[in-house]
Amino acid sequence: MNKLTGNAIVGQSGGPTAAINATLAGVIRGALGCVEIERIFGAVNGIEGILNEQITELGPQFSKEEHLTALIHTPAAALGSCRRKLPSYASDDETYRKLFSILEKYNIRYFFYIGGNDSMDTVAKLSYYAQMQHYDIRVMGVPKTIDNDVCGTDHTPGYGSAAKYIAATMQEIIRDCAVYTVPAVTVVEIMGRDAGWLTCAAALPRKYCGVAPDYIYLPERPFDYCSFFDDIEAAFLRHPNVVIAVSEGIRHADGHYVGQGSQSGMVDIFGHAYLSGTGRSLEAAIKKQFNTKVRSIELNIMQRCASHLASYTDIDESVRIGEAAVHAACDGATAQMMAFRRRPGTEYGIDIVGIDINSAANHVRCVPDQFINAAGNHVTDACVDYILPLCEGETTPQYIHGLPVHFVIDKTPVVL
Amino acid sequence: MNKLTGNAIVGQSGGPTAAINATLAGVIRGALGCVEIERIFGAVNGIEGILNEQITELGPQFSKEEHLTALIHTPAAALGSCRRKLPSYASDDETYRKLFSILEKYNIRYFFYIGGNDSMDTVAKLSYYAQMQHYDIRVMGVPKTIDNDVCGTDHTPGYGSAAKYIAATMQEIIRDCAVYTVPAVTVVEIMGRDAGWLTCAAALPRKYCGVAPDYIYLPERPFDYCSFFDDIEAAFLRHPNVVIAVSEGIRHADGHYVGQGSQSGMVDIFGHAYLSGTGRSLEAAIKKQFNTKVRSIELNIMQRCASHLASYTDIDESVRIGEAAVHAACDGATAQMMAFRRRPGTEYGIDIVGIDINSAANHVRCVPDQFINAAGNHVTDACVDYILPLCEGETTPQYIHGLPVHFVIDKTPVVL
Repeated sequence: MNKLTGNAIVGQSGGPTAAINATLAGVIRGALGCVEIERIFGAVNGIEGILNEQITELGPQFSKEEHLTALIHTPAAALGSCRRKLPSYASDDETYRKLFSILEKYNIRYFFYIGGNDSMDTVAKLSYYAQMQHYDIRVMGVPKTIDNDVCGTDHTPGYGSAAKYIAATMQEIIRDCAVYTVPAVTVVEIMGRDAGWLTCAAALPRKYCGVAPDYIYLPERPFDYCSFFDDIEAAFLRHPNVVIAVSEGIRHADGHYVGQGSQSGMVDIFGHAYLSGTGRSLEAAIKKQFNTKVRSIELNIMQRCASHLASYTDIDESVRIGEAAVHAACDGATAQMMAFRRRPGTEYGIDIVGIDINSAANHVRCVPDQFINAAGNHVTDACVDYILPLCEGETTPQYIHGLPVHFVIDKTPVVL
Repeated sequence: MNKLTGNAIVGQSGGPTAAINATLAGVIRGALGCVEIERIFGAVNGIEGILNEQITELGPQFSKEEHLTALIHTPAAALGSCRRKLPSYASDDETYRKLFSILEKYNIRYFFYIGGNDSMDTVAKLSYYAQMQHYDIRVMGVPKTIDNDVCGTDHTPGYGSAAKYIAATMQEIIRDCAVYTVPAVTVVEIMGRDAGWLTCAAALPRKYCGVAPDYIYLPERPFDYCSFFDDIEAAFLRHPNVVIAVSEGIRHADGHYVGQGSQSGMVDIFGHAYLSGTGRSLEAAIKKQFNTKVRSIELNIMQRCASHLASYTDIDESVRIGEAAVHAACDGATAQMMAFRRRPGTEYGIDIVGIDINSAANHVRCVPDQFINAAGNHVTDACVDYILPLCEGETTPQYIHGLPVHFVIDKTPVVL
């Protein structure tokens, strides 16, 4: 085995989740326990932090296990994030040269990047460039995204907690909507531009709690107002309180987003079509069609940052995949993304493996056909069975005076 | 003491909360332990359930303590609710005669009504009518509302849990918004048409968590776009991620609601002003003024039904005030609303007392001047100190397969 000694850096990229800091804690814990890694640095705001030398030292901040524990229960990205996508090195060699000169200055030999699809693209490009330049470094990607749309892994860290929040909140919303006898429709808009995984989670209370939204519409199926209205009419025959879950990314057959506002006809003071959002568009359309009470609810960023209701399974796996990335790198792996493999059988269990980064980057994993019902307006039991174990268990964040305790990383740049 | 033996009925009215079922559980527990009360009935959908004889028997459903425990952690109104306001008996004697004939049929001698301001009005009217007709009954109101705007009580059951949800969610939202370096404004719209109590709770993370929204705007102060823009400009000098909490009910000096859409200029396909909501209106105005990234978030009904994050103090007090109402009634009280009196001193404690129903009904309690800062754009430390103890402690709802367990009341009408 090729033993490589030097420093490590870790960065976070893309949208925040309730679990991305758990993975960060896993990487830090792994690095602190690894003899080949001398110092563990944090890149502030991802790859941008390296380019601007906003690099902080993490080791001394986490000498106490309780600090790691607090970080595990902190939502969002404690190191800050970015949405920068690296250019191809052929078109912009300059950026890469700058990046690698800084990596060399800090003697970085281990690079861990926690992020979604775009971040895996960064890992792929950096590892390719390093190989070309014969710069000895292990570059590893650790997936995170509430969207669950990264290829090559059974699921992504962060999805289970977002799914748990959505399912629990959906159950509460349905109870709330059921208290009046006046007919009403409630539309709940859930994140997911291209893949409907998060919206699928709205169905979870069906299995053990006996309630679920009347319908679930995903971007994986074209949306049609006629069948939508038929669905609502059928629901009203069953009960007065109709609840519907929709992905923000549902589209008409012609590819236009439902949320583009064309249906609601709203315009701003300049006459531009008002981008009212998917829930708002449906709200206006239902109001016009049924002349009934309608409400739309956006779960908004709460669904990605509600660490107070995180899934124990998700948080535990998120820590472990971070640690596993460090162990794999120390064992010689590079240009890999860590992934979950679900063990066969009825009892839930996973293995953490490394896969070729190029098989993961730049692809989107959608909800498969067998998870969507024939009418395209709900999910199957197989879908519920896939998601439920990811939401199992509750975490125990520390509270002080009624509020969860979060950990704030000191981002002061290290002086070499 | 005038001993009165017979049956009791309990109803829920007004908007749902995370604590109204805890009070229901308190009333049921109190009634089951009271020798004067022979049977405890539930009015399905409040006063409407009595008028329609949708009356269910509760005693046998709660013979096991674990059922009461599950009910305590169930959000919304397990008996169903209504928004019906009783007419004055002078204008519509018919409704009262029908109501009292049904009360007599079921031998109801104890009437407990859990609700907000309008429900206390119902209690006042019923007790007055009963007295006039010499119908021997004890009519008691138990306040509940997340709005905290009922007079005569230090705070209302349900407020502490909503405040805790808002404070914890606000902390998570601020962490989420802080991850990027791009300047952005996030407007969080919180319930409260006439009183800003719920929005005040957004400030709670300031004291022990070190974060808070940059500004808080309440209906108790006129809203002015010029000072609002000045505030935002000042905030941008401090950091790029500006977060603002606003009550849905903020109004201009002329009394018009900010959410009336006049500012955003949005019109629907018929040219009617589009009621875009307060957050949406501010979002459009900020976008126009600063040409920056803006997001608006509505905490919507989640803030009133998030029982998974209820306050232990609130839930405990909500059960106790329900029980106390039964004990007071059995001891001879009628035409009263139960209320919390905060004990003087630095350590938090309350006494539960009964007050004349007429001093409570039909008045709204606003946030007092000493709780709002001089600029009218934030709350004082005294305000935070008032709210914090109400959010103290976490409840321990039971979870099954990752989701909270709720209790569903069998509403089948009782056959006499």
